[in-house]
Amino acid sequence: MKEVISSAPGKVILFGEHAVVYGQPSLAGAIDLRVFVKVTENKAKKIKMISDNCMETVDFNELKPEGRFRYVKKALDIFFNEIIQVCRGVTISINSELPSASGLGSSAAVTVATMSALSRFFGAELKKEEIARLSHRVELEVQGAASPTDTLTSTFGGILFIEPLKKKYSRLSCSSLPLVIGYTGDPRSTAELVRKVRELRDKYPDIIDGIILQIGEITKKAKKCLEGGELHHLGELMNINHGLLESLGVSTEKLSRLVYISRKAGAKGAKLTGAGGGGCIIAYTPEKEENVIKAIAKEKCKPFRAPITVDGVRIENF
Amino acid sequence: MKEVISSAPGKVILFGEHAVVYGQPSLAGAIDLRVFVKVTENKAKKIKMISDNCMETVDFNELKPEGRFRYVKKALDIFFNEIIQVCRGVTISINSELPSASGLGSSAAVTVATMSALSRFFGAELKKEEIARLSHRVELEVQGAASPTDTLTSTFGGILFIEPLKKKYSRLSCSSLPLVIGYTGDPRSTAELVRKVRELRDKYPDIIDGIILQIGEITKKAKKCLEGGELHHLGELMNINHGLLESLGVSTEKLSRLVYISRKAGAKGAKLTGAGGGGCIIAYTPEKEENVIKAIAKEKCKPFRAPITVDGVRIENF
Repeated sequence: MKEVISSAPGKVILFGEHAVVYGQPSLAGAIDLRVFVKVTENKAKKIKMISDNCMETVDFNELKPEGRFRYVKKALDIFFNEIIQVCRGVTISINSELPSASGLGSSAAVTVATMSALSRFFGAELKKEEIARLSHRVELEVQGAASPTDTLTSTFGGILFIEPLKKKYSRLSCSSLPLVIGYTGDPRSTAELVRKVRELRDKYPDIIDGIILQIGEITKKAKKCLEGGELHHLGELMNINHGLLESLGVSTEKLSRLVYISRKAGAKGAKLTGAGGGGCIIAYTPEKEENVIKAIAKEKCKPFRAPITVDGVRIENF
Repeated sequence: MKEVISSAPGKVILFGEHAVVYGQPSLAGAIDLRVFVKVTENKAKKIKMISDNCMETVDFNELKPEGRFRYVKKALDIFFNEIIQVCRGVTISINSELPSASGLGSSAAVTVATMSALSRFFGAELKKEEIARLSHRVELEVQGAASPTDTLTSTFGGILFIEPLKKKYSRLSCSSLPLVIGYTGDPRSTAELVRKVRELRDKYPDIIDGIILQIGEITKKAKKCLEGGELHHLGELMNINHGLLESLGVSTEKLSRLVYISRKAGAKGAKLTGAGGGGCIIAYTPEKEENVIKAIAKEKCKPFRAPITVDGVRIENF
């Protein structure tokens, strides 16, 4: 039986979260935790979606983007309406290495992998640019608003330098980086944290704008260091960036603790990643992965070995 | 038997530590943890100094500023050489509510209280300006270098706004503030931490200068809030300031933890105070002193109820 497996990586924000909302650049990296999407034919002429212990079967005209499989449904909807009009039954099986709702871009990864697998399965052979564009549309239509960062990073892999004011995204040519992620397990709401920073900025505009500007400077410096191979600066820049995120009020006791214990375990630097208020930290860990992983696990948080990967979306079989 | 007891308060840096080294203003406050110095006559015509379980007896010509009583000896030396030439034996008994070497200004407080007690005991009736000036000289001669902040705050009480570039110190007219101190018990070296910040600034001058500038802005804003009675901003400004100190690399896991648990226990804001790397945190705690004190004690750190006090040095008896 014909089957296609495609996978796409998650992402972390390396530098610049929150400041990017106010026009500063940010750096996002694809991480080697992947979502695998398998497409097979099914005889029922229905669409069947399977993930962990969940299964849902719908008709072709029932692809409303709701429920657990909303991103997959929207991807199918756009693919069948705009790329290839077919009505063959397909089964979509999803297998994710990414914790969901943790800020690691699992929704973008599942979307990109689905789009890529469908493209190969039905012989559409979409180019990566097209996969990224369509996947961004999926996120936009499901969420109402979405930056293209996650879908671009997941599609192309590597590290992306994002300049919101210029509406420009450039891919850095750099190799893999050893990174460990610590997941607090605490839920967070990006919208709420963005609002919190905005309220603080409304109260203390000069001070908060000054801090945001420095986060932007750190991001630009980090880009230069990545391009120039001066990786020894990365850890320090992460530490400085983390302090500034603390000053914006988006860290938590647990995030702060994970950052400190990662540094103590030998990380060159560590910071919260993403919106904060829960979610994850990242630690830059050359030659110290095992130590840092153990230290995070000891805190009853979930560690992941998640190096930055240059591999974006890819077909795993076929 | 004639006896004089004088007391002088310790101090905390409310805002602006480290940034003050680079010309930004800082705010220091006298705290109601005092050093008591009692002067009595002794018949032996010697100088006897007593504190806790320590005692030392020296001749008038043996007042070298060394050992545990080096500040007291230097104060006696300057007083007897420049204010009143007498050779009556005196016993100096010291009783301190301040943990020593914790960054809370215990050496300034013991110096100021000694100078004040000697002045009253021998009828010199030094003015406060004179006590502050002579006490600063004591610190300078014992330490080699010293800012006049500690001795000025301990002498006059209240809150001092320090502008190093203008070499200006002004006293804010504001009432007491509820403050809780958490002492980690960890030793720290101010010189080492100042050096650490300098090294970071040498590596990333633009970024670190930008952060230092924002600490200065916070301090100026805090001054305005204190003068205008807008005390509800103080906690938030402390929190922002703490994050910036984190970004300068002078916080520690324990300081960060104390800051978070104080906020959780109801403090309006909290930050490390002084050089960092150990030492103390301060928490602004209107109506929540007890909660915060309990939370700090639970961490096996030493809490102090230490409101900002308008009372500087004072004679306690006589």
